[in-house]
Amino acid sequence: MEVCLTPDLIHQHRLEGKLVVVVDIFRATSCIVTGLAGSHIQAIRPVSTVEECLSYGQKGYIMAGERGGIQVDGFDMGNSPLEYARLGKNSAIDTSQKVAITTTNGSTAILKSLAAREIIIGAFLNLRAVADYIIVQSRQHPLRKDDSTTGGGVLIHCAGWEGRPNLEDTLFAGALIDACAGTQGLEACGDSALLARELYRAQTSHHLQNACVNPDLRPVALESDHGKRLVRLGHADDVHFCMERDKYDIVPKLNGEGEIAVAPTG
Amino acid sequence: MEVCLTPDLIHQHRLEGKLVVVVDIFRATSCIVTGLAGSHIQAIRPVSTVEECLSYGQKGYIMAGERGGIQVDGFDMGNSPLEYARLGKNSAIDTSQKVAITTTNGSTAILKSLAAREIIIGAFLNLRAVADYIIVQSRQHPLRKDDSTTGGGVLIHCAGWEGRPNLEDTLFAGALIDACAGTQGLEACGDSALLARELYRAQTSHHLQNACVNPDLRPVALESDHGKRLVRLGHADDVHFCMERDKYDIVPKLNGEGEIAVAPTG
Repeated sequence: MEVCLTPDLIHQHRLEGKLVVVVDIFRATSCIVTGLAGSHIQAIRPVSTVEECLSYGQKGYIMAGERGGIQVDGFDMGNSPLEYARLGKNSAIDTSQKVAITTTNGSTAILKSLAAREIIIGAFLNLRAVADYIIVQSRQHPLRKDDSTTGGGVLIHCAGWEGRPNLEDTLFAGALIDACAGTQGLEACGDSALLARELYRAQTSHHLQNACVNPDLRPVALESDHGKRLVRLGHADDVHFCMERDKYDIVPKLNGEGEIAVAPTG
Repeated sequence: MEVCLTPDLIHQHRLEGKLVVVVDIFRATSCIVTGLAGSHIQAIRPVSTVEECLSYGQKGYIMAGERGGIQVDGFDMGNSPLEYARLGKNSAIDTSQKVAITTTNGSTAILKSLAAREIIIGAFLNLRAVADYIIVQSRQHPLRKDDSTTGGGVLIHCAGWEGRPNLEDTLFAGALIDACAGTQGLEACGDSALLARELYRAQTSHHLQNACVNPDLRPVALESDHGKRLVRLGHADDVHFCMERDKYDIVPKLNGEGEIAVAPTG
């Protein structure tokens, strides 16, 4: 398993033939997982610009997204997973519609991964489901010895923040590598992967002293740039929600129409 | 203290007004520190191309450097700090000459830092000396509140490997942040700095269980891409040498003529 710490470094990785896991913990991929698992939304279309999102709005899509962490003017929704969790309950939004989403970092990471064999969406909220999916896939698409030329393998693509690596996405990458540990062909590959794994394991070992299995990652998440930014913007509850682990048992996958829907399992 | 994990991300950082510490543990900055501290070499000129290095060779410079970890054909020296440590002993090389050096990653990081107020060279070999230098400098150039627009502060610029982040340079960045901890204005700033600090501290805490103060970073260094590559090329002794801590008490600094010499202290 390789890790790309930010979309600004994706040119260093071969995408062809790979299973790419896109992660943007704060908050796009946490939103996508919550939207598809916790409401009746059927599909989410990632788009790169506000204008494109507005044009999908005219076709009946729910318009969602942010710029600089703030909901875009005129959009139906911002970029809060808690908003998605509330959909279909007291919400005025018609969840039989699809969603078009544009965010500062997450959409970019998805759209920069399009050359991959398959793109799935990861967050702490569906970490175990993603790990299980990867383990099954790795048996169906075993890594070949000539991988460097033919592709194959898994790449975790961290969305980062405006091209910079960030703490929470790197932690997720480490947690996913850790969750797949012991499966042949899913070893950490390259220094960025080792770096992510060591970072995550450092949190685990702190926590193991307190005799728990899954570490509480909220303190380090709150110390991150983006965590602090969200708290400043009044979204501390989002930070806590996004760091919850294994709340949902689905794997969102990009389909041939450029929309993300729940991947069939089993 | 900010951290840039690779020269491919340096455009995300403001250099003006900053003290930049360039690090390329394997092996350019370890060579520079060893060359200036352990032999009689007066100055080392980093250049970007083999051709440029050859042209300095015609002016009497010692030509040093590598491509892909291997000494360039026709050069006087490769890129091994142990070679520099032997200079002036049984070596046929005249150490009254200056050195022109070109390497895959280290020279690039130095030359991409030129807009900084000051560029110094860091390695585990001179870690404490660099930390002390930074602490003294931070008193002379205190960080101002309007730092984001006027510059100031310290940036650790990791050379990485062909634009990719690497483990050993990131570990050094974390070790340097840790060594400056407690000094006002030298706190970790940004997620890359937090990431480096946490990575380093994870090694420390493993080691503290064995009741030593400075962690033995050789095992993790040998697991890194570049560590493994050097072992394959027969340079395991270089890996061990580069991970030695505080062997030399000098701080190399780039001067106005584009050459690196020992910075005056005190």
